[in-house]
Amino acid sequence: MKLFIPGPTHVEQDVLNAMAQYPVGHRTHAYRELHNEVREGIKDVLMTKQNVMLVTSSATGLLEAGVRNLVGKRVLNLVCGAFSQRQADITKECDIPQDTLSVPWGDGFTPKQVDEALKNGDYDAVTLVHNETSTGVMNPLKEIAQIVQKYDDVLFIVDAVSSMSGVEIKMDEWGIDFIVASVQKAWALPPGFAILGLSDKALERAKLIPQSQRGHYFDILKLAKADAKNETPITPSIPHIYGLKLRLQKIREEGLYARFNRHHEMANKVRNWGKARFGLYAKDGFASDTLTCFTNDCGIDLDAFGKAMESRGFLISGGYGDLKGKTFRIAHLGALHHEDIDELIAVMDEVLIEL
Amino acid sequence: MKLFIPGPTHVEQDVLNAMAQYPVGHRTHAYRELHNEVREGIKDVLMTKQNVMLVTSSATGLLEAGVRNLVGKRVLNLVCGAFSQRQADITKECDIPQDTLSVPWGDGFTPKQVDEALKNGDYDAVTLVHNETSTGVMNPLKEIAQIVQKYDDVLFIVDAVSSMSGVEIKMDEWGIDFIVASVQKAWALPPGFAILGLSDKALERAKLIPQSQRGHYFDILKLAKADAKNETPITPSIPHIYGLKLRLQKIREEGLYARFNRHHEMANKVRNWGKARFGLYAKDGFASDTLTCFTNDCGIDLDAFGKAMESRGFLISGGYGDLKGKTFRIAHLGALHHEDIDELIAVMDEVLIEL
Repeated sequence: MKLFIPGPTHVEQDVLNAMAQYPVGHRTHAYRELHNEVREGIKDVLMTKQNVMLVTSSATGLLEAGVRNLVGKRVLNLVCGAFSQRQADITKECDIPQDTLSVPWGDGFTPKQVDEALKNGDYDAVTLVHNETSTGVMNPLKEIAQIVQKYDDVLFIVDAVSSMSGVEIKMDEWGIDFIVASVQKAWALPPGFAILGLSDKALERAKLIPQSQRGHYFDILKLAKADAKNETPITPSIPHIYGLKLRLQKIREEGLYARFNRHHEMANKVRNWGKARFGLYAKDGFASDTLTCFTNDCGIDLDAFGKAMESRGFLISGGYGDLKGKTFRIAHLGALHHEDIDELIAVMDEVLIEL
Repeated sequence: MKLFIPGPTHVEQDVLNAMAQYPVGHRTHAYRELHNEVREGIKDVLMTKQNVMLVTSSATGLLEAGVRNLVGKRVLNLVCGAFSQRQADITKECDIPQDTLSVPWGDGFTPKQVDEALKNGDYDAVTLVHNETSTGVMNPLKEIAQIVQKYDDVLFIVDAVSSMSGVEIKMDEWGIDFIVASVQKAWALPPGFAILGLSDKALERAKLIPQSQRGHYFDILKLAKADAKNETPITPSIPHIYGLKLRLQKIREEGLYARFNRHHEMANKVRNWGKARFGLYAKDGFASDTLTCFTNDCGIDLDAFGKAMESRGFLISGGYGDLKGKTFRIAHLGALHHEDIDELIAVMDEVLIEL
């Protein structure tokens, strides 16, 4: 079964094998060298000279960590799909004061909308899901970041779960304070690990937040203290760090912008294939470079389509949450290349004729 | 380098290879079958018919989850070493009302001490580290559990990080409500995953605790809800679940009590080897079956000893925290067998002659 779902995604056997190396002790020189190499490699991908943390959890844990470590006053949650809605829910569950600004699913945010909301509220943080995995919407991160930068006290918390390493993100230049990815999307590892980019300003803010709000496991001050020694506070998932080491080598070999371009071209290929029969769920200008969500315009039996693909060894994804039965999704990211997409398209065409 | 440190521990190549299998989608039938098989296998090891959760984090996250999900009134933290001290620190960091009952490092708790403390306080939970990895002390879990059971409202939270699957633990019969392990100790996988045994009573208690105290990522009600569908709330570390599947097969092949007995005999072998030259740090009756902490009675250069062992490909462990330079530790657990211990002892003898 080959994975074309938006996570977990396809992983090459050499990366899987790299994860199967015998573990090192996590308080040894060998570990500290590994940690340092991987963290510095991720910093290059995020184009940051600030901080990157290696975290043993899914990205969801870090999305909780963001609002708990950084919000002293009130946070604005920007909601445009299931995962940004979950960020708002997490914020409320943690009793962090918040407001929600919503746009309809399929839409993304314009910089102007964010500007208006920040102007009219009294916020010290704002959350954005860069790439909404539920709708295939990619928000204009750079342009929204430029707006957030105008508000000195407002920290910018970004869920880049299904975009980081697949598209350009200039953490320092754009002014992102807290940016999160899990590894089973564009990073193309098996799930079970998360990556956190963290500005110095975010660390300063965390010092003003009560310890009980920050908690223990996801306290970014503890993460940063251990990271300064090239360690993690707890015993980390060493298999994932081994995997990241090889992934970063592969990214360097391909070239970062060649990688971004590959994602962009695979997205175009998938969209061009689908537009004859289906519609794009994402509104104009918001279509994602890492995954595509199609509406069922020609009224095929989506369930039968998915099952027929599965029986041929290709796993694609149905609609998420409220979109179940109405849309389907194809991921084109990470370790998937043009030849994989070509093969998928050929098989989808075959199946659609037979349906 | 072969690992004889108390985590990460030795892992066989076939278990590492099992983790390198191509990932499954986490919302598929294939995943749910895997999840179910692994969870049921762990329930057999814990001798429970109640609940076991698979958690993507280190065990430390679950130690925070224990006090946050279960303490409505006040918790008694039993402290006898670095890791039980950390449990008390976590409790305080989370602003959970607590008292600490301490015994000197090297000592363990008697049931009577626990009884006295529970009688004289107004607690609704008590935490115990079953096996103190810092001191090599194993507390009498069964006997202390019998005491805690007398107090109807008091939930029993147990850190079994370095004991679970290495020694007998009858979760249901003994009345344990929340028991935690990480996988890089007696479970003998690479680090990055945690196991939680949970009583029905604990789940009932969690319903009375405010959502904001429980938080999101480590909310045991969310874990239980997803587990009822053979899923996890978030995308789990599938490599670790693959590894656990093979580990459980190996445990069944060896036999659970044969496994416990092997740990007991390996512990005796290591202690008998060491007692000619060194002292046991654990007081009489408290020596652990999974790791041994020796005092440096003959005044050797511990640093040189460790380095000489390392240069021969054997990693043993120095003293932890305040015991650095004063003790050294040998783990005899998980995938280590008598022949590994024999080999280690032969090399230690060689090195000690040369020192």
